[in-house]
Amino acid sequence: MGLLDELRAALPEDLLITDPDLLAGYQRDEADLCAYGRPAAVVRPRETAQVSAVVAIAARHRIPVVAQGARTGLAGAANALDGSIVVSFTGMDRILEIDPVNRIAVVQPGVVNADLNRAAARHGLRYPPDPGSWESSTIGGNAATNAGGMCCVKYGVTAEYVLGLEVVLADGEVLRCGRQTAKGVAGYDLTRLFVGSEGTLGLITELTVALRPAADESLTLVAVFPTTAAAGAAVAAIAAGGVSPSLLELLDQTHLRAIEAYQPMGLPTEAKALLLAAADTGTRAAADLSRIAALCEGAGASEVYSASDDTEAAALLQARRVAHPAMERFAADRYPGGRGGLIIDDVAVPRSRLVELLDGIEKIAAAHNVPVGVVGHAGDGNMHPNIVVDRADPECVRRGQAVFDEIMELGLSLGGTCTGEHGVGLLKRDWLAHEIGPVGMRVHRAIKQALDPLHILNPGKVIP
Amino acid sequence: MGLLDELRAALPEDLLITDPDLLAGYQRDEADLCAYGRPAAVVRPRETAQVSAVVAIAARHRIPVVAQGARTGLAGAANALDGSIVVSFTGMDRILEIDPVNRIAVVQPGVVNADLNRAAARHGLRYPPDPGSWESSTIGGNAATNAGGMCCVKYGVTAEYVLGLEVVLADGEVLRCGRQTAKGVAGYDLTRLFVGSEGTLGLITELTVALRPAADESLTLVAVFPTTAAAGAAVAAIAAGGVSPSLLELLDQTHLRAIEAYQPMGLPTEAKALLLAAADTGTRAAADLSRIAALCEGAGASEVYSASDDTEAAALLQARRVAHPAMERFAADRYPGGRGGLIIDDVAVPRSRLVELLDGIEKIAAAHNVPVGVVGHAGDGNMHPNIVVDRADPECVRRGQAVFDEIMELGLSLGGTCTGEHGVGLLKRDWLAHEIGPVGMRVHRAIKQALDPLHILNPGKVIP
Repeated sequence: MGLLDELRAALPEDLLITDPDLLAGYQRDEADLCAYGRPAAVVRPRETAQVSAVVAIAARHRIPVVAQGARTGLAGAANALDGSIVVSFTGMDRILEIDPVNRIAVVQPGVVNADLNRAAARHGLRYPPDPGSWESSTIGGNAATNAGGMCCVKYGVTAEYVLGLEVVLADGEVLRCGRQTAKGVAGYDLTRLFVGSEGTLGLITELTVALRPAADESLTLVAVFPTTAAAGAAVAAIAAGGVSPSLLELLDQTHLRAIEAYQPMGLPTEAKALLLAAADTGTRAAADLSRIAALCEGAGASEVYSASDDTEAAALLQARRVAHPAMERFAADRYPGGRGGLIIDDVAVPRSRLVELLDGIEKIAAAHNVPVGVVGHAGDGNMHPNIVVDRADPECVRRGQAVFDEIMELGLSLGGTCTGEHGVGLLKRDWLAHEIGPVGMRVHRAIKQALDPLHILNPGKVIP
Repeated sequence: MGLLDELRAALPEDLLITDPDLLAGYQRDEADLCAYGRPAAVVRPRETAQVSAVVAIAARHRIPVVAQGARTGLAGAANALDGSIVVSFTGMDRILEIDPVNRIAVVQPGVVNADLNRAAARHGLRYPPDPGSWESSTIGGNAATNAGGMCCVKYGVTAEYVLGLEVVLADGEVLRCGRQTAKGVAGYDLTRLFVGSEGTLGLITELTVALRPAADESLTLVAVFPTTAAAGAAVAAIAAGGVSPSLLELLDQTHLRAIEAYQPMGLPTEAKALLLAAADTGTRAAADLSRIAALCEGAGASEVYSASDDTEAAALLQARRVAHPAMERFAADRYPGGRGGLIIDDVAVPRSRLVELLDGIEKIAAAHNVPVGVVGHAGDGNMHPNIVVDRADPECVRRGQAVFDEIMELGLSLGGTCTGEHGVGLLKRDWLAHEIGPVGMRVHRAIKQALDPLHILNPGKVIP
């Protein structure tokens, strides 16, 4: 039988898409300027056995398999290849269990992050990882990319919450790994190996994740800085001062102006940078926040003010949350007619080197005359330089890519990593090789070969 | 050249031990009843290049290499094989860097846990993982076994603090993996793969670990229970109640009596179980501890009392800390003349199943007429049943092993794992295979084959 005939025989009709018009909707994630192809078929499984059957068929035909969640990724990891089978997990969206005593949830991969949080809240619990896409992205996609978010500065990234997995391997066999217990050291940490592997080692079909008690009451402040260097110095001072904010975000002037244009809210658009900080320590939050305020003032903040109530705090958070669409609008306005594009970068450096990173990005942007806005998780040293390009102008795209490369080079030279939270996908493959070197690449290839000897799982992603 | 000649050529004379009397001191860790052999040589490297040279020589000669730290392990993972090369890391004991802004330390593997903590304290920081052996065990050994401890209930295990590694691979090449940044998702999580792999995939020669601000002021309480079931119910109630104690330990009556005999301190030896809880939330600690006290009383505690000051709190913690030597004394007293042995088990179950585990262990011990004391990290559902046997009596050892196996079986049947924190080594190999099943074993073998194709790194450990 041909590939499609086998798929038709293995799946209910409504779970298989071969109509070219519909296939076009499954070609790519949100990464701009990454290559993508046209899949031969999209399958939308409802259960693990169907995923297993599809992968087994793909293995027999040596056809690439690409897993997709909500396709909100920013590195092209979910981009289809020509002739591939796309497995879209959005139909496997059931929360199978929430267990308040063990503080765990068992979910299918297509559960939306925000839906899990709403369900957990009904038990006085929460699932901390909060990528910007949390209202639409899936727990499976979050795990496959080891997604971060704003809470990471205090609560850590997705990997720290994934306790156990069910994974369909490259030959269609089903592996269960990890645990449902608070601790466990039985064997190699396979769970952690699959988390962040972007569909190149297996397809996640079920997750056991840790939950936490609902957060205590939190308070929020804003600190306004006359230079980005002063904001960077404040971040270092807060880290060295032993305080643990529950949120510590930076917005540069380009973002402040883009956000104010997108959604006017009275942001201080003359400031060179703004830090947004929160403490969620309940009765201690006011004292913790005062300490953060003092450290910001000591580092040169021109103004520090606390949100007077939850509404104001929510508004400040909202400003940060719309940074991405606001920058897209900024790019669209600058290069009208659909030509405006964003290369969204993601670099993390040691917190102590944040000032050098911010300074360096400004210089690189100026040297190439390319607008770059910087926003990100300052408390983690994890910045997102957003590079604005005219997609219709190859020379402009070339300059944008030069800026991208120089920022990557700078980040690595500061002891940083080429991706703090967005992942490698297609966008960072060459930089991954640069970062981890030939021995690191050899180990990556050995593991890939061990788990996917036919190289059918998301081939070409992560590893060049 | 022969093996020893090559080692002599590669290493300064004082770093190579071949004297049989001295070799005998490097044969095993602290696991009772695990097999061990006589090494052909022990090397005590001072730098990574020496480790690399030794492993390359071993690879050429197809000679097994066994890494050792302080040999405080409890599963036989560091036990020598006949004719092997033991690499003892206690001489690589330098703290290379402590960085308060980035809250990291860079250390050689032979640094003792307590020494790192003392050094971090001088910067207002600490390294949380606190295995019972923390005054003697090494950070490299802690990482190789992914060691736990009493703080894990709030602060997590060793793996959560290991950010980056330098590892000598099976062919002698040197890999650097992980990061020095707060976040990073560049490629597969090799760091996490090596952590807990017990020297079977590579030899750790340098670690970058995360530090935390020094703990806030803490308060401690003791709750006395008329049944172990009531103590288990209290643990579940605390977890479900949304409180996060910084310590939640259980001691059963056997331990209370053994400790009191070993070091009289007025413990309530008529109690069937005792819970020790602490809150380290500073100004909130009293309120958090009151809530824990109320939950213990609600679950049936006959008495709950708070430590009146730091001295009393330290004394209570000390009672818990001497549980292991006290049980060794108990075994030695019961079977005098050096015949008394302990099989120290390590099982973790979901917190909600703790009552069933404790009940089941009592029944198993009674059925085989073998003394079993239970102590452990109740807040994690991680218990250490200590099985007392007469080493000189094969029938008694057989009954002890039957108890061990039945406890393992019970733990797995409750959704638990065969090892919560001690690791697999030799002691749990068969149970690992039982727990993870044939697909899990196949993946383990594939990874082992990918990274150690000649099977020279600690062969026979972890994987049967």
